[in-house]
Amino acid sequence: MMTGHFTLPLAFDLAATFFFAVTGGLTAMRKGYDFVGVFFLALVVGLGGGLLRDGLFLQQMPTVMEPHYLATVLAAMAVSLLLGERLNRLAMVFLVVDALGLGLYAMVGTQKALLAGLSWVPALLIGVINAVGGGVIRDLITREEPLVFRPGEFYAAAAFAGAALFAALVVGLGVTAQWAALGGIGLVLLIRLASVRFGWKTRAARALIRSSDAADSGV
Amino acid sequence: MMTGHFTLPLAFDLAATFFFAVTGGLTAMRKGYDFVGVFFLALVVGLGGGLLRDGLFLQQMPTVMEPHYLATVLAAMAVSLLLGERLNRLAMVFLVVDALGLGLYAMVGTQKALLAGLSWVPALLIGVINAVGGGVIRDLITREEPLVFRPGEFYAAAAFAGAALFAALVVGLGVTAQWAALGGIGLVLLIRLASVRFGWKTRAARALIRSSDAADSGV
Amino acid sequence: MMTGHFTLPLAFDLAATFFFAVTGGLTAMRKGYDFVGVFFLALVVGLGGGLLRDGLFLQQMPTVMEPHYLATVLAAMAVSLLLGERLNRLAMVFLVVDALGLGLYAMVGTQKALLAGLSWVPALLIGVINAVGGGVIRDLITREEPLVFRPGEFYAAAAFAGAALFAALVVGLGVTAQWAALGGIGLVLLIRLASVRFGWKTRAARALIRSSDAADSGV
Repeated sequence: MMTGHFTLPLAFDLAATFFFAVTGGLTAMRKGYDFVGVFFLALVVGLGGGLLRDGLFLQQMPTVMEPHYLATVLAAMAVSLLLGERLNRLAMVFLVVDALGLGLYAMVGTQKALLAGLSWVPALLIGVINAVGGGVIRDLITREEPLVFRPGEFYAAAAFAGAALFAALVVGLGVTAQWAALGGIGLVLLIRLASVRFGWKTRAARALIRSSDAADSGV
Repeated sequence: MMTGHFTLPLAFDLAATFFFAVTGGLTAMRKGYDFVGVFFLALVVGLGGGLLRDGLFLQQMPTVMEPHYLATVLAAMAVSLLLGERLNRLAMVFLVVDALGLGLYAMVGTQKALLAGLSWVPALLIGVINAVGGGVIRDLITREEPLVFRPGEFYAAAAFAGAALFAALVVGLGVTAQWAALGGIGLVLLIRLASVRFGWKTRAARALIRSSDAADSGV
Repeated sequence: MMTGHFTLPLAFDLAATFFFAVTGGLTAMRKGYDFVGVFFLALVVGLGGGLLRDGLFLQQMPTVMEPHYLATVLAAMAVSLLLGERLNRLAMVFLVVDALGLGLYAMVGTQKALLAGLSWVPALLIGVINAVGGGVIRDLITREEPLVFRPGEFYAAAAFAGAALFAALVVGLGVTAQWAALGGIGLVLLIRLASVRFGWKTRAARALIRSSDAADSGV
């Protein structure tokens, strides 16, 4: 299944790291953390998803320990420190940066899992976990309810749709990974932005078989 | 030490996944998560303990990535969505389902650790961590104080007692793993239900050597 | 790069486990956990950093599963149960015990990463993560804001400075690991105690390029 066209340039991985690290840095600025806190939150959010993917799911030495990933986190930290106050005023910035990281990591995670020989079901799952992992860690550490669980956000669903498009294009249609990834990232970005722009809302899941009391009271 | 009789059927592992995934799904329903949230919490709680066991402690490719585990999580999600409202009214349901997951994972974790060549001390520890891991993750994500740390719950202690009985029966007495596991699970269930039924309470640990002030004030 | 002089005695690792396990046990006593909760928090805090280091970053079977680590945790639990009430009255005790664990794990983590063949940048990072990991897990479980992120604490910075001194002495100057580690631990302890004694404060990171509004309002 894995042919020569099936690789993604390192730039995708580093870009995902960068964008998520920026969301970590911006969050740390908003929370009033000091320099070390800004660095650590950028580090954990930028590298967390990839670390779970490599170290826990794929049982590989985490690539994220290599120096260019750390340099990427430092760049994201610099952006957060330089522009944090200005960027944090614009809710749109956080949304877009987070969506870019989400899309990129969904592609990178799916691709690495396929490359490790997993079939497409676990590969998509690892892609989604790679994509949402950094944000879940960010939210746990800063004691927010994780975005992925909050109703009314097409978050994990967006990552899943993008990863599925990517896998279908690469494995099914033989599109090169790079073009397929651009398509998948575009889809993730589109779903995230459209869901906010048009106020798409998911609802709290309701039991399909309700108890009679609940039906009576009209809840 | 590892003879041919020392295996547990896959059904034990899948049943543990199913029961814990149901506790995740029911919790997500109660918290008002949407469908994706219900799926993810069922996934994380159902597979979390096994993932820690395989990926972190035993350094093996996590079996939980295989499609039949995912199908089990989807089945648990369906149960939660169909019956969640009704089941969440009955505190007993959650207690029993959680206790079954706890017992099953304590057996499966201990057995896999023994099979990996670990001696019984770390094997019991991994069994307990496998058993309580999913629930700890569930409680951290939903920002509850983890059940395992709350005074007045024979939770980890029940998992430990069951795992110890299992190891003693299999390793010491040569009972086949399947029968030993049924005994161990029964013990876990018994301890959990009896502790609630008869109001067994543990107390906050008190320092054995108190400071004189505390003794004076009668605290 | 790795010569024969480059090993640390097991005592360093066990001492780090002991000190962090004591901070876990003392925290559990203060929180009113029962005996099982005291044991588990001591276990998780004492072994958490080493577990992340081995199982996630270095992809090795976690050494912390071996019985003498568990015995060390039990000893720390005994100290917490015997002296917890008395020790918890003295804020200095917690500070010093935590600082000793921090320094020891920073050395052990850096050394193991270097020994695994990593270059010094990721080795220092793993040393710092090893050092702060247990405390972050302790704070997450007990729902405190992690110490490493709180402004005004030279915490991760102290671990980093000590690890860097250690690496420089061992790799650069050929000092034996044991002496270099004593130097590094001393530096960590000095920074932690001095920062509290002299009220050193870091400040919340402020954007270097402020928005004009903020400048106007004098914030």
